[in-house]
Formats: sequence, structure tokens, C-alpha cells
Amino acid sequence: MTTIVDDLLALLRPDQVATDIPTRELHAHDDAEWAPYATPLAVVHAESLDDVVAVMRAAHATGTPVVPRGAGTGLSGGANAVDGCLILSLARLTTIREIDPAERYAVVEAGVINDDLRAAVAEHGLWYPPDPASSARSTIGGNVATNAGGICCVKYGVTRDYVLGVTVVLADGSVARLGRRTAKGATGYDLTGLMVSSEGTLGVVVEVTLRLLPLGGREPRAVVGSFASLTDAGRAVAAVMADGIVPAALELVDRTCLEAVERWQHLGVPVGTTAVLLASVDEPGAAGDAVADRVDAHLRAAGGATERAVEPAEIERLFRARRLAYPALERLGPVLTEDVCVPRGAVPEMLARIEAIAAEHDVVIATIAHAGDGNLHPLIIAPEGDDAAKARAKLAFDRIVAESRLLGGTVTGEHGVGLLKLDGAAAELDPVVLAMHAAVKAALDPRGILNPGKAFPATSTVTSEQQEQP
Amino acid sequence: MTTIVDDLLALLRPDQVATDIPTRELHAHDDAEWAPYATPLAVVHAESLDDVVAVMRAAHATGTPVVPRGAGTGLSGGANAVDGCLILSLARLTTIREIDPAERYAVVEAGVINDDLRAAVAEHGLWYPPDPASSARSTIGGNVATNAGGICCVKYGVTRDYVLGVTVVLADGSVARLGRRTAKGATGYDLTGLMVSSEGTLGVVVEVTLRLLPLGGREPRAVVGSFASLTDAGRAVAAVMADGIVPAALELVDRTCLEAVERWQHLGVPVGTTAVLLASVDEPGAAGDAVADRVDAHLRAAGGATERAVEPAEIERLFRARRLAYPALERLGPVLTEDVCVPRGAVPEMLARIEAIAAEHDVVIATIAHAGDGNLHPLIIAPEGDDAAKARAKLAFDRIVAESRLLGGTVTGEHGVGLLKLDGAAAELDPVVLAMHAAVKAALDPRGILNPGKAFPATSTVTSEQQEQP
Repeated sequence: MTTIVDDLLALLRPDQVATDIPTRELHAHDDAEWAPYATPLAVVHAESLDDVVAVMRAAHATGTPVVPRGAGTGLSGGANAVDGCLILSLARLTTIREIDPAERYAVVEAGVINDDLRAAVAEHGLWYPPDPASSARSTIGGNVATNAGGICCVKYGVTRDYVLGVTVVLADGSVARLGRRTAKGATGYDLTGLMVSSEGTLGVVVEVTLRLLPLGGREPRAVVGSFASLTDAGRAVAAVMADGIVPAALELVDRTCLEAVERWQHLGVPVGTTAVLLASVDEPGAAGDAVADRVDAHLRAAGGATERAVEPAEIERLFRARRLAYPALERLGPVLTEDVCVPRGAVPEMLARIEAIAAEHDVVIATIAHAGDGNLHPLIIAPEGDDAAKARAKLAFDRIVAESRLLGGTVTGEHGVGLLKLDGAAAELDPVVLAMHAAVKAALDPRGILNPGKAFPATSTVTSEQQEQP
Repeated sequence: MTTIVDDLLALLRPDQVATDIPTRELHAHDDAEWAPYATPLAVVHAESLDDVVAVMRAAHATGTPVVPRGAGTGLSGGANAVDGCLILSLARLTTIREIDPAERYAVVEAGVINDDLRAAVAEHGLWYPPDPASSARSTIGGNVATNAGGICCVKYGVTRDYVLGVTVVLADGSVARLGRRTAKGATGYDLTGLMVSSEGTLGVVVEVTLRLLPLGGREPRAVVGSFASLTDAGRAVAAVMADGIVPAALELVDRTCLEAVERWQHLGVPVGTTAVLLASVDEPGAAGDAVADRVDAHLRAAGGATERAVEPAEIERLFRARRLAYPALERLGPVLTEDVCVPRGAVPEMLARIEAIAAEHDVVIATIAHAGDGNLHPLIIAPEGDDAAKARAKLAFDRIVAESRLLGGTVTGEHGVGLLKLDGAAAELDPVVLAMHAAVKAALDPRGILNPGKAFPATSTVTSEQQEQP
């Protein structure tokens, strides 16, 4: 009897189908190793659309689960292996097929790295805004599957806002070319948008058409404020937004982060600083200077000590604490990354609750936040090998998710549900909405082989309508 | 035996269920009376979410088709009555529930008029950008169902870009609260986005949560150019976009439109003008002046004679030809409104082909275009009562759709498929994509009672997978 792996070895080159244990273990999970994962049957490296079609046909014929994977930088376990699955890697699909400066779009394969795309389009005077922290490693396909965000979102939106079209391979191996290349279009359902953030559960993203912006016309200026209290920093955020300002970035770094960075790199953060707000505005010319002045005034009025920068190197220096926060914390132990989003006015209250949860569960939680969007990343650290601390960290994680909901928020701002947020999503989405998810999934992947168990929680109940179905 | 109308009369007040012939005929079609329509069984005026639930439950129990309707300003027949249907009007749902300046969103009922929303949020220093030409009459629910666009889209996007969440009543009367109020969110599938542009075929939109922008910070300036040839105007559009400029509007009005406006209102358009380009830029301060200068230079370099305006009344005067184009043409006879979208570089070629099609079919076609988006509205005029001319107009319509596809375009930029673009959509969407539409529709509306036959063409073929389904 032949297995699916035999089938794939007959269809693809040997170096495209890895069955050795080290490769399988290396691809068993993404950056959410806190979430459950299995060891895959094999790791398949697609090098073309036809390869993906062949893999899906073979998987479909045998009912084999397929977990699509880009660079594996996901933080919710969306690419973690499930029992008896193939890992289908798109990482070798790295061709930038087309960059059209006149129409302002690019067509790229799924495995193109975010930073590589940004560099390539910059040569044509174009800009791809979405800038997840993983941009040096993460792929456009993964960015689309999770609807990746970043620092720019407060002004320039998320991945979804830039996806004009996708070529996806469906569960049965058929190829769907969704979307368009024109600036506008309203033909039929937005199935392109349905694929974005569906975490590989509805189709395998192979090619993406991305809307681009002109590279020029922006003149970044940084305004950074140091605050003695979280509440003051929160008041500053509220004041900036209430004044009708749309900052190009509005980030917050809390005391625990600052201390970790300071111990490592000695940046000279003022003593007594509880939170730093890092704002940038990018309107050109004197109008931009005036907006920066207004941001500065709001930060000072809320009690902040401010610094300003215009030169790129100086802006980079001021934003350094933000950039170094994650690696500084990883030095302290494995990091469990949270990703809740609350109304931006609730950021100070959410930060206070996170501090209380840290104390209650005796874990270290450092928070960086896209404050202008209300999107917080509490980073929960448990020392290596301390299983009790790890258990406490998971309890703290669940409490943060619950508190975000109580403040009118959502359980994931930009990392997706994956496996880590299934319980949170079950609390956030009501039974009718969960049943809609299940119905759409069943319509497009009737055998349930595409990344099963991810992106939304299974429903134990069905609607009366579904019961009536044959 | 009781009928569905008896059921509704038992559930609602008598003035909510109109069965008189004049009311039924008045609601038999939207502004696309060229598309087929029937006379509905009754017109039901919902006044609450509960009313919509009651109507859908009754319709579901009896298998009665339901056609949701806002103001009936649609241009593709999306709200045209089908045989034996109820027209479910949301026009009485006019409550603005919430405007939150700090979080920059509004929650409104489906029947709120676009202009009323814009006026209400302006009082809070906020702006709702989407500005369809129908904004004085069309409802937010209709705007969402069709993903309405407008002049602002070239810089500020379409309705889809502003919809954070929707409350919809599904085919079986269950209520789905989709989306969120936070600035970001990635919990589950984007079912909110799936509802946008689904033309009432997947659910009845009852309430919408809309993202808003600050009202201030924009300083509009107009640059208007008169061109002796379409090619010159097209070169000007290409030059503006290639220069990395993002205009706040970039509209084109062709000779036939200009002549109709001139005969009616005598605006003094220069003799020999074949096309007028109307641009606006809205960056504040000297930077905005500089961008306006660049636009002006590009228009002149392409052979345009330009005028500038900064004062609102002057801008309004320069844009008057655009605003008056549609009413000026309606004076000549019933207007069949096209809505193709091509790559913006293909606008001159598309305009030339439209002129050729007009000559070939002996019909008057006047074109206004959102040139910066490549979105053209050829307006085909047939004299009242001239059935032969009407038949020729429909042939010209089909030819324009076909030519837009040959130029890499899409059959509808912003009006939706409705009934008028079913053939075009069948040509544009491949069988796999059409099968996906049918599968999603069947998953969410298994009895097919919600606006049947609209938004996408029926597939006569099914995939092997669907055949295997029980």
C-alpha cells in the first residue's frame, strides 16, 4: 500500500519532500511553540503553483490534513502541525512577478519576504506599508493568511487594505484567481478579503496582487515622551487622537520593557519613567512641523518630558527602545506574546489590569502597544525550564484575553486566532457567527483538510437550518 | 389558507405592509429600470431589528423571496423585484445610535442617508469619506450592500474601507453581529467584508459600525484642465499618478457631457475642448500648494489649459460641469449608466473605444470618469419611447463591458453586479470562482430566498467536490 508521502515523492523531486526527523521537527510549529503541535508526516516544499495543486489533489484524495506555512513567524500557532498532517511550505516561492509603477501594484509569489518586497518596490518609487515586526523574515503569503499589522497601521492600515487579489489553491486542488488589478472593483463577493486572515483554512495562498502607495511625499518626524504614570501616557494618547491628528506611528513601551532594554543596552531612559510614548507624524513641510508641535504639546500637557527628532538616524535612536524591547525580553526567558486590542481610550485601564494580573500570577509581563490603535502586546516571560511559571503564564494569558473583552476589545488585533486564541474567539463570537464560520468552511473545504482546527473554534451546536440540510 | 402577506399583517402594523398597486409598482425597481423587474407581493417597511427578524422568519417558513431595499438609488438592478417576492425596505431605520469621537466610529441603522450621516459626524469633528453621487438620497445600508464609491475613492477608498462591523439578519431570521468597534481586529473570517458588496444575497444589513476620519487637516485646492484630445487628458492622468501624487479627486468629463451641460447651463467651456480633467489635492499648507503646482504642470505639459481655485465657492464653480453632467444628460432621455473599471493607463484607449461603439450603434454616449481610479461611467442615452434606440443602447452597453475586459478591466467598479452585469460577471469570473460564490451562498442561504439571482451569475456546472456532497 502506498502512502501519501509515496505519492508526493512520485510527483515532486526528492529534495522537495523531507521526511527526516530533524526537518519535520523544525517545521512542527511556528513561533507559538506554547501552542500544541504534532510532528508532521512530511514537509513539502512547493516551488510552483502546479506543485501546490499536485499536493492538494493528493491530500484531498487521501483525506490528509495540510498545514500551509510561510516563514513560520506566526505567533498564534496557525502554522503548527496537526496529527497526521503535511506541512506545505511556500517559502521557496520567492518570485516577484510584476511591479507596475503606473497602476501602483505588484504581483508576488507567497514566499516573498516582506522586507524584500518593500526593497524591490522602493526601486520603482513605491511603498508597501504593512510592517509587522517580523518583516525581515515573514512572507507575504503568511502576512495575508494572518492579516499582519505593524507600527504603520494607525495611519496606513493592515495587510487586508493592500490585497487586491490572490491566487489560491482550494482544498480539492482547483485554482481560484480572486480579485483584480484595477484600482476599484465590485464584481461579486469579496472572496479575496475572505481569504485574508483565514489562516490557510479556506485555501492555500500562492500568489498575491498588492496595492502600493507612492514612496515619496512623507517626511517623518519623531516626538517621544517619557511619562511618570501609565494614566498620563494614556491621557496623552487620547488627547492626540481627540485633536484630529492621524499619527504615522503611536507606540507605547511600558516600564518592564524599558527596564529590560536599559539593563541590556543602557539607553539612558530617565529615572522614574513608567511609560514612553513614541509618536511619528509624516505630513510634509511646515504643516507636518505644525502637527509635530501639536503632538509635542499634548504629550507635555499630559505630564510627559519630550524629545524631538527629524533626522532619520535621530528618529531611529529615539525609537530604539521600541525596536529592542522584544529581543531584550527574550534574554529573560521564553516569551508568550499576547495581542489584544481594546478601544484606544481603554489602553491605560488595560495596562493597569495587566500589571495587576502579573502581580497576581507572579509572572513578568512587559507590554509594548500600538497605542494609537489600542492594540497591546503584553509579553509574558517564564524562565526557561520552570514549568510552574509556564503554567502561571498561561493563566495570566487567559486573564488578559478575558479582561480585554470586558473593556470592549477583541482577543486578537493582528496575530490571528491560530490555536492560542480559540477559547478567546469562542467567547467573542456568538453561536450564530460561529455557525457561519463553520458553514463557510464546510462550503469551501467539505473534507476539512485545510489547516483543520485553526482560525475559529469548532461549534458543538448547529443551527436549525443546518439540521434541515440533507 | 393564509398567505405570507396575511402572516406579515398579523406581525406588523398595517402601515408597515403595503399591498396597494401604486406602492408595489413604486418599489418594483431601483434606478436600473432597464433591468428586468416584477411586481412584488408587498412592500414591507421594517422599523426595527425585530421587524426584520419577523419578516425573514415568515419568508423562510414559506420559501418567499425577499429583496432588501434602501433608497432604491442602485444602478444595477440589485433592488429590482423578482417574481413573488417581498420588498423589504430599511428606509425607516434612520437612527444614528452612536458617534464616538475618541474612538472615531459611528453606529447607524441601515436607513440613514449618507449625507445625513456626514452632517451628523461633522458636528463631532469627524468625516465619513465615501461620497457616491447619490449621497443626498442613498442609505448607508445600500452603500454597504453595493460597496458604493464616489469621487473621493482615489485617495480615501470605498465603503468597504470604512465598515468595521455589521448587524445582519440571515435568511432564517437569526441575527449575526459581525465585526468589531476597535481600530484593529483579526478574530476569525472577515464575514463583515463578505457582507459588503453582497447586494443583500447573504443577509439583510440592519446596523453598521463605520470607521471615521478627522474632519480637519485637509485643505482642498482645485486644478482643472481643458484638453483638445482625450489622449492628452489621458497622458495628464498618467503623468500625475507616475509622479507619486495621490490626488483627492481626479475626474474626467468628456465632450458629449460638456456639450450637454453647456447647452443647458452655459458654463463657458472653451471651444474645441474634448475633455476636462478636474483634480483636487488636499494636503495642508505650502506642501499642498506645491502638489497643486505639480498637478498643474503635468496638465499643462500634456496640452491642457488650466485654471486653479482655492476658495470653496470657486472650487465648486470649477467642478460644476462634473456635478451637472448627469442631470444634463437625463434631459436628453433615459440614461443607461455604465460602470466599468480599467487600468488607469487604459482610460484614453477605453474612451476612444466608447466613442467608436457610440458611432457604430448610433447612440449617444457621454462619459464621466473617476479617471484616477480608471473607473468610467459611460452614460448611454436613448430618446424616451424609442424602442429601437433602446435596443441599440443595450447592445452598446454589452460591447463596453466586453471592451473593458479586453483592456484588463472589471465589469463593475462601484455599482455592483445586480442584474445588469450578470453576463459580464460570468465572463469575468472563472468557473471555479463562480462555484465558490454558489457554495458560499448555499452555505448561508440554503433555501435561496435572499435576493435570488442577483450579485453573481448562476453556475450551470458544479465541481466534482460539490457533486460528492450529500
